[in-house]
Amino acid sequence: MKLVYVLVSIAQLLTLTQAAVKVNPLPIPRNITWNDENPIAINLDKLLLDIAVPNQIISDAFYRTVTTLRKLQWYPAATEGPISSFVPFPTGDPAKRRREILEKRDLQHTFDLSGLSVVDITVDDPAADLQLGVNETYSLTVNSSSIYIEAETVWGVLHAFSTLQQLIIFENNQYVVEGSVDIWDAPIYQHRGLMIDTGRNYLSIDKILEQIDIMSLTKLNTLHIHLDDAQSWPILLNSYPEMILDAYSAREIYTIQDLQYIVKYAKERGVRVIPEIDLPGHARAGWRQIDPNLVACGDSWWSNDVWADHTAVEPPPGQLDILNDDVYNVIEDVYNELSEIFSDNVFHVGADEIQTGCYNFSSLIQAWFQEDENRTWNDLSQYYVDKAYPLFMNRTNRRIMMWEDILLTPEGAHTLPTDVILQSWNNDLTNIQNLTARGYDVVVSSSTHFYLDCGYGGWVSNDPRYVDDYTNDVFNTGTGGSWCAPYKTWQRIYDYDFTANLTDAEAAHVIGAELALWSEQVDSTVLTQKIWPRSAALAESTWSGNRDPTTGYLRTNNLTQRIFNFREYLVALGYPASPLVPKYCIQNPHACDLYQNQTILEEFGTHNVSSS
Amino acid sequence: MKLVYVLVSIAQLLTLTQAAVKVNPLPIPRNITWNDENPIAINLDKLLLDIAVPNQIISDAFYRTVTTLRKLQWYPAATEGPISSFVPFPTGDPAKRRREILEKRDLQHTFDLSGLSVVDITVDDPAADLQLGVNETYSLTVNSSSIYIEAETVWGVLHAFSTLQQLIIFENNQYVVEGSVDIWDAPIYQHRGLMIDTGRNYLSIDKILEQIDIMSLTKLNTLHIHLDDAQSWPILLNSYPEMILDAYSAREIYTIQDLQYIVKYAKERGVRVIPEIDLPGHARAGWRQIDPNLVACGDSWWSNDVWADHTAVEPPPGQLDILNDDVYNVIEDVYNELSEIFSDNVFHVGADEIQTGCYNFSSLIQAWFQEDENRTWNDLSQYYVDKAYPLFMNRTNRRIMMWEDILLTPEGAHTLPTDVILQSWNNDLTNIQNLTARGYDVVVSSSTHFYLDCGYGGWVSNDPRYVDDYTNDVFNTGTGGSWCAPYKTWQRIYDYDFTANLTDAEAAHVIGAELALWSEQVDSTVLTQKIWPRSAALAESTWSGNRDPTTGYLRTNNLTQRIFNFREYLVALGYPASPLVPKYCIQNPHACDLYQNQTILEEFGTHNVSSS
Repeated sequence: MKLVYVLVSIAQLLTLTQAAVKVNPLPIPRNITWNDENPIAINLDKLLLDIAVPNQIISDAFYRTVTTLRKLQWYPAATEGPISSFVPFPTGDPAKRRREILEKRDLQHTFDLSGLSVVDITVDDPAADLQLGVNETYSLTVNSSSIYIEAETVWGVLHAFSTLQQLIIFENNQYVVEGSVDIWDAPIYQHRGLMIDTGRNYLSIDKILEQIDIMSLTKLNTLHIHLDDAQSWPILLNSYPEMILDAYSAREIYTIQDLQYIVKYAKERGVRVIPEIDLPGHARAGWRQIDPNLVACGDSWWSNDVWADHTAVEPPPGQLDILNDDVYNVIEDVYNELSEIFSDNVFHVGADEIQTGCYNFSSLIQAWFQEDENRTWNDLSQYYVDKAYPLFMNRTNRRIMMWEDILLTPEGAHTLPTDVILQSWNNDLTNIQNLTARGYDVVVSSSTHFYLDCGYGGWVSNDPRYVDDYTNDVFNTGTGGSWCAPYKTWQRIYDYDFTANLTDAEAAHVIGAELALWSEQVDSTVLTQKIWPRSAALAESTWSGNRDPTTGYLRTNNLTQRIFNFREYLVALGYPASPLVPKYCIQNPHACDLYQNQTILEEFGTHNVSSS
Repeated sequence: MKLVYVLVSIAQLLTLTQAAVKVNPLPIPRNITWNDENPIAINLDKLLLDIAVPNQIISDAFYRTVTTLRKLQWYPAATEGPISSFVPFPTGDPAKRRREILEKRDLQHTFDLSGLSVVDITVDDPAADLQLGVNETYSLTVNSSSIYIEAETVWGVLHAFSTLQQLIIFENNQYVVEGSVDIWDAPIYQHRGLMIDTGRNYLSIDKILEQIDIMSLTKLNTLHIHLDDAQSWPILLNSYPEMILDAYSAREIYTIQDLQYIVKYAKERGVRVIPEIDLPGHARAGWRQIDPNLVACGDSWWSNDVWADHTAVEPPPGQLDILNDDVYNVIEDVYNELSEIFSDNVFHVGADEIQTGCYNFSSLIQAWFQEDENRTWNDLSQYYVDKAYPLFMNRTNRRIMMWEDILLTPEGAHTLPTDVILQSWNNDLTNIQNLTARGYDVVVSSSTHFYLDCGYGGWVSNDPRYVDDYTNDVFNTGTGGSWCAPYKTWQRIYDYDFTANLTDAEAAHVIGAELALWSEQVDSTVLTQKIWPRSAALAESTWSGNRDPTTGYLRTNNLTQRIFNFREYLVALGYPASPLVPKYCIQNPHACDLYQNQTILEEFGTHNVSSS
């Protein structure tokens, strides 16, 4: 992982490591120094902003922060601490048993009842828009006389609020920060994302907003919405309202106003929204309502019971017919209308998993191959790229994002403009290296580590592989029907060094990473449970890294109590994040470690870290 | 699977198979015959019971049924239907494309506005208590003149209501049953269970009641509550109130009144509650508060970083010290108090996963082995069984239930009374055959098929196995840290023939099956999502079987639309059951089948079926 090392004095490091403060913010800041442990009272009922130029986004966010603190009266559920001592394994004398006496924590403190009541804020460039690469740096100081936030942009201030919200705890009927503290903080990666999928199953607007709320707490800054797929089209457009006939029901749609509200809500919380319309594959619903001839193979059997003939990787099949000129007119109209709704400079246009078998159903494409026997599938993909790319470049600063398939599959295009951002999901480091070496900016979504839908078995029905004859071990004792099993745990997500072995030049092209939750087995009933809290592991690894900035060692063990506490925090806020462990593990730091050896992860030291 | 074949005429079978009615109750009744398809209106607002001897449980259940029907106004979300025709794969002429015209279903019917307003009920033995083996048979007839239910017991009537509730749909502003119908129904297995675990994490009372609600809809009749474990003790007892000091918090407890309410609530819905106190292993929390000397190895490191020395299979360790006489006094007191709360004749006393390494910490046990070098771990287990079993036999008709480990592990007891019900979770058919051949009644909970907690990766922390060096394929591409991966899908649960190859005598000892959801990664936020709707697959396979009663073929394909509809039904009722598929699959019967061949599962025909 690409790390920007921060100079920390040994004294500071010891202070940080040994601090007895109970708060343990997530993501851990790049640099946090506790100068002392004299609690500083906060007069939350009178807490005011002091800012030279009033800013609505900042004042709204501040109000939310204060209100949340009041509602929660949070006291850390999981605190960091040294692993307990355990009775040694008996050697020689089995009668020798000793029992620890439980330590009683002294919770008695005395506080100054007045408390700080002003948050001073300096914003250098309040006009900076929330776009890829915007400066998100902030510094935050709390001492006995003031709370001071300085940031280049509004978006940095919002991150400072997320940190401050986690620093203030409620103890002995007082809101306090546990000591004088200095924080300087900035993200390692520009793009820290989460992808949700409203095409396979509809997701309620409330549940989408809930993801944005939690993202902003973790400093994830990019929500990628895979809006449609072959199964359904949930967007009511002015240009082609008939596409909505392929929504699942009249209730399961997004109006333009809905989408605008999501974009605005996210921006107010420092979260960019990148829309995705999947083209030209995964396209059936909606498009076929405009004109059935736009879609190839949409009425075919998806696998044909013979895999070699399959028309789709999952039901139902359908791809836009690349050689039908009408397709480009429709794409242009739909794309332009959606471009107006989504303010982000980046727009995702899919391009994954084009199945050549589908185009056996297109008379235009079959004829095209017959006209010139030298033509290849790569030529066909190139035809699409050359016709579609100019349509996508419809505004200044526009950059499009595509799945890596458009270049890296056997039927991919020959060339692609290098300003396209490619999202990598296959072959781990191999593909990341391949793409960055060719000069493409890459967002890492390796399905082996960042796909949140994996491990729930298969969902296609009439599947004889579940009949257990005790010979089909891969299916019945291994993946169990989930193509990307196993389930990705928070540790697995956090430990992934996705720039390992890259050159500095290659690593500089990794602009971030993104978790992906495909919706075949997801809707509003399970959305939050499947995303949180494990996604907070990526939030931290992309913000401040997964390794100690000084030693370069994996700090997964240090994240343990932090993510346990964060999960309880989310539940206290009303978000149904999944439990990670028996609560016993939360209440007894490191008692549920696999190894008592607290430095075992250091064996995986710095060998994968590239310097910057 | 042991099937009781029902004689069905070919004419009846055709009627059943080809019926165009939309309802598709789950579990499918043993025998359901639609005599015609003339809708029968139900006057729900005036619907009354006609029963010779009023019965509070029946009248309450009837009120709930009617209220639910009113609240839902349900119309089936997934209906059975023939798989669509698909455009053939192109052969020779790729220009030849055909497109299906979407069928418009004619939803216009005319109804008699009056409608049936009486449900006639006959109960032959209204005093029969809800206990293992109680008669649950019912018959239900709906025709143009009456709704008639006949049952041996109250518990059969409740099952009839669950069926009736699924038969009545709301269509064109009327409640109707879609035709005249005769049902005879009875369970294949007496014990149709679900186990939940309140020891690893607390489960709220509301969420426990929610499981009972859904169980009663599916005709599952046994809720097994694994009340405590080494991690926590949530029960506030009169005999040893200090045990509650090992609850996770003052809010996360069950009082005696709470438990009595759960038992009463369940009984009113036809669900038995079997409590489990895990003895002598998995015992630490609670017991240690009475006297630290009751518990061995409770302060040791659980794995000691050397597996050969491990004291527990998961943290924290702790087992009752079998040779400490005080242990038996305490067990007797706790058991007797819990026996008063739980009215079921069956009580589960654990006995799984005793770790010999733990007893290296017991001076009594080490001295005992030193006294006589011929003593074995089996002798020690036998000592426990011989001392504890008589304590458990504290009432008439008492039967205890234990995990199979007490007999089948290397350190198991030599002998065990044959009236103990054994719950089998390891080695699939091998252990089931072994135990039933020895004359034990068995409840099947094979972890390969019925463990609902599998597939979510591992939960112990400080685990270096997640560091991906691309050599550790089993961990990082296989099980991913979950010892019992993969996740058990509804198809996997349904397809399991757990009496395959047993003799008739052995099969007669399989009294049922039970799903198990251990709570290491479960609490109230995810409980319902992890259990439903997939547990409905076991509800059906244990009630009416997983195979067509006439042909003996697996009927998993026939369950598909039924379980899809049932999931939508649960969500409509307010229960957050997990989505199984894109809604597209629900709206297009069998379009998401892996094979277009609708009889492919028949290849797994009748070879595993034993006759009765």
